[in-house]
Amino acid sequence: LAGALPIEFDRIARHFAPLAGTGAFGLTDDAACLIPPPGEDLVITADAVVAGVHFLVDDPPEMVARKLLRVNLSDLAAKGARPLGYLLTVSVPANTPEAWFVAFAQGLAQDQSLFGMSLLGGDTTSTPGPVSLSATVIGCVRHGGMVRRAGARPGDGIFVSGSIGDGALGLLAAQGRLADPTGFLTGRYRLPQPRIGLVDADDVRAAMDVSDGLVQDLGHLCRAGAVSAAVEAELVPCSEAARALGADWLATRLTGGDDYEVLLAVAPEAEATVRQRADLAGVALTRIGSFGSAGPGPAVVVRHSGVPMAFGAGGWSHF
Amino acid sequence: LAGALPIEFDRIARHFAPLAGTGAFGLTDDAACLIPPPGEDLVITADAVVAGVHFLVDDPPEMVARKLLRVNLSDLAAKGARPLGYLLTVSVPANTPEAWFVAFAQGLAQDQSLFGMSLLGGDTTSTPGPVSLSATVIGCVRHGGMVRRAGARPGDGIFVSGSIGDGALGLLAAQGRLADPTGFLTGRYRLPQPRIGLVDADDVRAAMDVSDGLVQDLGHLCRAGAVSAAVEAELVPCSEAARALGADWLATRLTGGDDYEVLLAVAPEAEATVRQRADLAGVALTRIGSFGSAGPGPAVVVRHSGVPMAFGAGGWSHF
Repeated sequence: LAGALPIEFDRIARHFAPLAGTGAFGLTDDAACLIPPPGEDLVITADAVVAGVHFLVDDPPEMVARKLLRVNLSDLAAKGARPLGYLLTVSVPANTPEAWFVAFAQGLAQDQSLFGMSLLGGDTTSTPGPVSLSATVIGCVRHGGMVRRAGARPGDGIFVSGSIGDGALGLLAAQGRLADPTGFLTGRYRLPQPRIGLVDADDVRAAMDVSDGLVQDLGHLCRAGAVSAAVEAELVPCSEAARALGADWLATRLTGGDDYEVLLAVAPEAEATVRQRADLAGVALTRIGSFGSAGPGPAVVVRHSGVPMAFGAGGWSHF
Repeated sequence: LAGALPIEFDRIARHFAPLAGTGAFGLTDDAACLIPPPGEDLVITADAVVAGVHFLVDDPPEMVARKLLRVNLSDLAAKGARPLGYLLTVSVPANTPEAWFVAFAQGLAQDQSLFGMSLLGGDTTSTPGPVSLSATVIGCVRHGGMVRRAGARPGDGIFVSGSIGDGALGLLAAQGRLADPTGFLTGRYRLPQPRIGLVDADDVRAAMDVSDGLVQDLGHLCRAGAVSAAVEAELVPCSEAARALGADWLATRLTGGDDYEVLLAVAPEAEATVRQRADLAGVALTRIGSFGSAGPGPAVVVRHSGVPMAFGAGGWSHF
């Protein structure tokens, strides 16, 4: 006598159930059962994205799915965790075509396989508004091994993974506001590269992912650790595509968001070990400055040609 | 040199950080660290709700917050889990007043204290659409002790907690479509009662929460366990307020959603133990029928005065 199954059940069965892993019971139960690896702590983070705010309405659904997972995976990477699984909520307009779900699920499938995790559960609903998505990603780390934002000490080196500024430039390129002949920058905006495997509490004192701009995020690391930071602008790693745009974009690179690289505090004696692990993980790692004692001045000072830069709405100037 | 903190940081610090528990680091890190209770499995569920779809735009924000937590807690309750923590994503229009956040956080505070859990993390964003919220709730259960939808056997009793049908009637009342002089039904729609502590794998063979209507959800339990179900309509527990509306509302009560009660399969020899635990938890528990062997007929048969009911758009009729 049970009525016909609503469209949500059908969508879940068709598109999301194939992504379900151990403990998710094919998404047919009320909840997932996750057996934590013995002796490990869980590292958990959640993000929401909304069409027209965090991604462009015309962005390919598979890229939206992958970016949603990756912005969370980037947080796990910065904490030294490895991914286990994720939950997803998907709110879409009633007229969302089946093809959207097909592409969205393909993106999830690709990245969950790439990063070694599976779908644990979630919810699909309709909305009269724009597509609104959330993901909760769960990872694990040996007990006590989550790397915090707090922990940098004066004398530690400031390191960043990959290159800085491509995400912000890529957004401008995607909006048609600057040239990106190779599509590299747009690609960097659309598809962050979570640096899983780079961070380990054995030799990294503090870390965070760079998502709101290098200068601002370095400020968070300084406040959390009660230290200051001195950065050499010339040392901040820059992609070829960003370099080709010229020096005018320096401030954008240093303050723009969407990098999803990792910012690390590493003691001098641990530097070799961390560099070795980065090499093994195939991740570029660059020392851009050093932490110092907290003082009355600004927490973060970026020097260009040895002179402190001041960032403002119009770019930057020397102090 | 870091720029001013955006409004999101301020909102998080003001309204959400006070709700953060152990391992959430005051919501100032990239992720939360959850140390699973040794030897326990985690039980995890997520739900999304959208203004105008899942709650009324004018619903008090504190009630929206509490219902969001409770629909997830109801899933944990049905699985025999106890709550540990939750993550939240909050997407709101740019002009959302500060008072909305104050009330929303008050609702969270009230229920996280009532149910013994804390905020682990999340995200706040703006949206050009309606308020869109999601919660991921994490609970725990002794290893292997999550109660599944599958597991009912022929001869097991069908039990439900509380009373059935108030949620669906309460929605109609909230929409002004039926009288609710005491406000009881509206209250039942707005504020589900998660039955934490009712279910234990030691003596409950299968369980699920009733959220899509008793008849449909019982169908899920039957399919999961490859059994059938025979229910006596007269036995289905009914609140005084629902009873006062008269027999015309029987089909609505049996098929309407938003009950957030628990449906259980209990072997005859375990019945006394389960009833005892329900008494201790202060939860009414009613036997409404029994499971049988799966056959060629419908999985779920509800009898009224001994005659099978057929549910349709116009209510119900005898077969």
